[in-house]
Amino acid sequence: MADTTPDDALIVFTPSGKRGRFPIGTPVLQAARSLGVDIDSVCGGRAICGRCQITIGEGEFAKHGIRSTAAHLSEFSAVEKRYDDKRGLLAGRRLSCQTKLLGDAVIDVPPESQVHKQVVRKRAEARAIDMNPATRLYFIEVEEPDMHKPSSDLERVYRALAEQWNVADVSCNLTIMQNLQKVLRQGEWKITVAVFSRPASGSNIMTAIWPGFHDKAFGLAVDVGSTTIAAHLCSLSTGDVVASSGLMNPQIRFGEDLMSRVSYVMMNPGGEKEMTAAIREALNTLAAQVATEASIDKTDILEAVLVGNPVMHHLFLGIDPTELGGAPFALATGLAVTRPAKELDLQLNPGAYVYVLPCIAGHVGADTAGVVLSESPQYSEDNMLIVDVGTNAEIVLGSKNRLLACSSPTGPAFEGAQITCGQRAAPGAIERIRIDPVTLEPRYRVIGSELWSDEPGFEEAVASTGVTGICGSGIIEVIAEMYLAGIINQDGLVDGGMAEKSPRIRPHKRTFTYVVREGEPFISITQNDVRAIQLAKAALYAGTRLLMDKLGIEHVDRIRLAGAFGSHIDVKFAMILGLIPDCPLDKVQSAGNAAGTGARIALLNAKARDEIEHVVRRIEKIETAVEPLFQQHFVEAMAIPHKTAFFANLAKEVKFPEPKTIIPLESDGSERRKRRRS
Amino acid sequence: MADTTPDDALIVFTPSGKRGRFPIGTPVLQAARSLGVDIDSVCGGRAICGRCQITIGEGEFAKHGIRSTAAHLSEFSAVEKRYDDKRGLLAGRRLSCQTKLLGDAVIDVPPESQVHKQVVRKRAEARAIDMNPATRLYFIEVEEPDMHKPSSDLERVYRALAEQWNVADVSCNLTIMQNLQKVLRQGEWKITVAVFSRPASGSNIMTAIWPGFHDKAFGLAVDVGSTTIAAHLCSLSTGDVVASSGLMNPQIRFGEDLMSRVSYVMMNPGGEKEMTAAIREALNTLAAQVATEASIDKTDILEAVLVGNPVMHHLFLGIDPTELGGAPFALATGLAVTRPAKELDLQLNPGAYVYVLPCIAGHVGADTAGVVLSESPQYSEDNMLIVDVGTNAEIVLGSKNRLLACSSPTGPAFEGAQITCGQRAAPGAIERIRIDPVTLEPRYRVIGSELWSDEPGFEEAVASTGVTGICGSGIIEVIAEMYLAGIINQDGLVDGGMAEKSPRIRPHKRTFTYVVREGEPFISITQNDVRAIQLAKAALYAGTRLLMDKLGIEHVDRIRLAGAFGSHIDVKFAMILGLIPDCPLDKVQSAGNAAGTGARIALLNAKARDEIEHVVRRIEKIETAVEPLFQQHFVEAMAIPHKTAFFANLAKEVKFPEPKTIIPLESDGSERRKRRRS
Repeated sequence: MADTTPDDALIVFTPSGKRGRFPIGTPVLQAARSLGVDIDSVCGGRAICGRCQITIGEGEFAKHGIRSTAAHLSEFSAVEKRYDDKRGLLAGRRLSCQTKLLGDAVIDVPPESQVHKQVVRKRAEARAIDMNPATRLYFIEVEEPDMHKPSSDLERVYRALAEQWNVADVSCNLTIMQNLQKVLRQGEWKITVAVFSRPASGSNIMTAIWPGFHDKAFGLAVDVGSTTIAAHLCSLSTGDVVASSGLMNPQIRFGEDLMSRVSYVMMNPGGEKEMTAAIREALNTLAAQVATEASIDKTDILEAVLVGNPVMHHLFLGIDPTELGGAPFALATGLAVTRPAKELDLQLNPGAYVYVLPCIAGHVGADTAGVVLSESPQYSEDNMLIVDVGTNAEIVLGSKNRLLACSSPTGPAFEGAQITCGQRAAPGAIERIRIDPVTLEPRYRVIGSELWSDEPGFEEAVASTGVTGICGSGIIEVIAEMYLAGIINQDGLVDGGMAEKSPRIRPHKRTFTYVVREGEPFISITQNDVRAIQLAKAALYAGTRLLMDKLGIEHVDRIRLAGAFGSHIDVKFAMILGLIPDCPLDKVQSAGNAAGTGARIALLNAKARDEIEHVVRRIEKIETAVEPLFQQHFVEAMAIPHKTAFFANLAKEVKFPEPKTIIPLESDGSERRKRRRS
Repeated sequence: MADTTPDDALIVFTPSGKRGRFPIGTPVLQAARSLGVDIDSVCGGRAICGRCQITIGEGEFAKHGIRSTAAHLSEFSAVEKRYDDKRGLLAGRRLSCQTKLLGDAVIDVPPESQVHKQVVRKRAEARAIDMNPATRLYFIEVEEPDMHKPSSDLERVYRALAEQWNVADVSCNLTIMQNLQKVLRQGEWKITVAVFSRPASGSNIMTAIWPGFHDKAFGLAVDVGSTTIAAHLCSLSTGDVVASSGLMNPQIRFGEDLMSRVSYVMMNPGGEKEMTAAIREALNTLAAQVATEASIDKTDILEAVLVGNPVMHHLFLGIDPTELGGAPFALATGLAVTRPAKELDLQLNPGAYVYVLPCIAGHVGADTAGVVLSESPQYSEDNMLIVDVGTNAEIVLGSKNRLLACSSPTGPAFEGAQITCGQRAAPGAIERIRIDPVTLEPRYRVIGSELWSDEPGFEEAVASTGVTGICGSGIIEVIAEMYLAGIINQDGLVDGGMAEKSPRIRPHKRTFTYVVREGEPFISITQNDVRAIQLAKAALYAGTRLLMDKLGIEHVDRIRLAGAFGSHIDVKFAMILGLIPDCPLDKVQSAGNAAGTGARIALLNAKARDEIEHVVRRIEKIETAVEPLFQQHFVEAMAIPHKTAFFANLAKEVKFPEPKTIIPLESDGSERRKRRRS
């Protein structure tokens, strides 16, 4: 550390803490590589890609025993200057490939210079995504053909990959073989290649080639839902979502829900081919949209990862879903699928690969596998319940010790279907509602406005959309509030007696109804609506309870609500209705579009593919249809919140009304009531 | 060995000699398997396929210490009887899966019951082909779906393969996934699957499925020549060629020889696509022809193996061959290619794979790799010269220690092109010829007749075809005979002075010509014809000599002449002309269509693919165009048989004429000659 000139210098990399002595004059990137420090590079040290940027620590680093200063690095070179002029370097940043070590130095590798950086997710409790893309770009200089040492162009490309990047055992498809000679000569023997490494196999596939230096590598994470298809275009180097888009699933013209689409195939042999074509076409539309939005070429999309329920999964792959329409609900394949995008008619890069996550069971699909990847119950110390509510609810329960999954036939009530004034979540739909327990007057909010209906300016605020109906989260709240206000009892029966107290309760056919809004449209909750929600929530609870039985637990420690419905409902109301078992309310969280997030994780991290394939094999699949206890659980769960289970945690936050007995109406529809023995 | 009833018995299998003791009642097939005895089976012991037949040895086997008798096997069972009634069992044959061990037994496994049997080739000196097909059929019984243990159909198929056949790590393509459920239900959970195991990788690909038991597995070995395409349909179980067919290469309409086809592409951008389509269409025609001939369905063709020269190789794969048309003659790829047949537009089984042998260098293609596989110089103790003569000659020289290869530009003279009366080998072409050294009268034989032209009945015998020209082998013979008769001297000059001796030697322009046949067509050998053959043979010899230099040898130990030309020429005449270096004549043999045989070997033996890929990497590639010595060797090889090399072995069999000096004609074309200093 004196000013004598030593032969070598100590270098310490942060944040890894890796350290070593290197001869004076060693390029920093080379020192990093020999220490196994994670620094990105596409160009391989040619000052082209700018991925290998570092900063020097200034001052005494007692912890490392080093005085580090900018003077301990070689001066800003002409090559770095050129890069800076062309593409810009932040102050203090150096290209580690061009910077030589002149003395002891503490070198910081900023996250954006790391290949295996972490991509932080929006939700505080969510695991960050470790970048480890299956597809990487490599800039290589290929030897020119030499008649004195005859060898083929492809062999020299493979040799360059092995020598310059240590990437061996490479193969490629015909398209690459067909284009290689032109690209090599166009790039004057300097080309960039994309290499796709299949998880869990040592093999590497060269999927794309470009003349010269190429720096664009993107992937598409797609969640194929029965109703909507969502696609996120992600950078395979930063992990960022650079564009997103969604489309209605065009298969809706063949049937609104999954079972009607399966029926379409049964009734129209070959109909699965139309639906397969429709879904693939939609994916191509989405890919084109996000590519345009991000100003990239579609050929820069080098991978796609898909999740979807079993029927969507089969239809996307071109498999007839008929077997999924009836017992024993056998999947053709539940294994993860890795196939060329071309084979699936996707117009991405001609060499792109598609990865489809594994399915768990006949009713628990690759979307649930995505949810698992996103929420990671396999790492959980305590027992986690994950519920993804749609037409079916998929339920996963367990911890790192054991995981179980099932699906439960909730029907479409939670999505607003089969509810008199139900509708999809869209502007104008009631999404929040409170009922005054004394006056029984409601106040509510609709999608598109922050105002409550009893606040000034509400009518003006909603004038453009109107108040059109009630969406899923609104239905949960209104029925929970009706229960808390005593309008319905623990059995879900609307108390006609309350009609005396408020005009909002009024007879409707042989039952009573609760009027949320007079006028046009007239919005009310009927006895049938309550029944529909009870059936749905009982199915959901019964499925959960069945898994709890199998696991031998009476309480769950944490709950995640996945999917659009799970994102919008107020968990307290969900628990009041008994959709989910009792649990401390602060341990219940929405997981957002966890299936889509799972697709993104699998896109950005090849090891996550191995992981989810492994986890899915481990998950114990329970088929509710053949479990005798399911029916009993279902019946008990019809009550609000539940016939027998006590919601201890919820009781701390919510005052439950006293149970009451309501005598149903006489058959003549009159309001006359008589007491029965309770 | 007494008649007490022991608990177990000794079983000895022949020819392997494997032996072991097994409990009384053990099925013979099971005993064989546990000893690792090679017995075939497709049905897995269900008495369906009949592949596991054995015979019992009768009598005392002192060598094995066993008294073996038919009574030591269980009686002919009802199941065997049923098989015998349906498909027939030869006398003494038993189905080893149905036959139980009751006492000591010597069991013979006949070759046709062995998976790894040897297929004997016609040529006595040729290595037998060891059967080890990449594609095998497996009959499996798949568990039905069970809602109590949900799993996908494909997973249960994989499990059956692992449990019933010990075949693991299986994957499959989309077509299989799409058809699987139907096939499983059609076969009532019993199906036959074809599994393709890629050589040198542990992976297994399920390429085809059939409901129930299926016993047909065939492969296509194809030699794509510039002129003709030959295909052999082989059984993947017996190795037999069950049908063969050939076609003219339809690319001929784009250019007669390779270089004119490359020029076509250069002058017509995109022209390679037409030629690719033409060749693939021809292969489909051939596949259909052989399938019809063998009465099988095209979907029973589960694999194809191709060889061809580099231009054919590239065009078949859809690669623009332009780079092969000029220095540095870079191949796009020289590596072996394994791709789905579908991707190459071949209409075989939809899951079939195509294997294309590796190319050696820009002028030494997959056809030469096939020749190497067939002739196996890599196992040779002594130095072997292999020559495949076409428009280019490909030359391979060496032994197990070291192998070299080059190509030499012989031009098409050996094929009868550029020769005044030359023609392809076809009925009517002169293929054999002798010249009386005294009278200079020729006698000859033409293709289509066994008679010599001086034998009675010759004219009648050839009346239908006529005598139409001279084919390649005839040209070699006539020029060699002209040399032996003194009509040409060691420099190839036609001796005009002999015109005094015979009217068959007569002036032609400024030189002399030798008349083989008067009349129509008039058949003669001109001075230019002799020159063309000298140029071709000098190129061939110079290439060989160059490899001998590199290897540091003065003599080769053995010579194989491959290809159609090599099959038809008389090796003695080839040596008299100096096409090949001196060598004991009995060590010179024709190898027939060795390239096609190589394709067949690779088709029947997956390990042969690994082997040839390995050998090709080892071969030292010599580019004659950049070797300064090549030109010198070429000039010296213009003389007959050679300017400097002495043909010691040939001299034992043939009396060479004395060298003589011939004064070329004066420019006025007169016969007047004057002596020059010699």
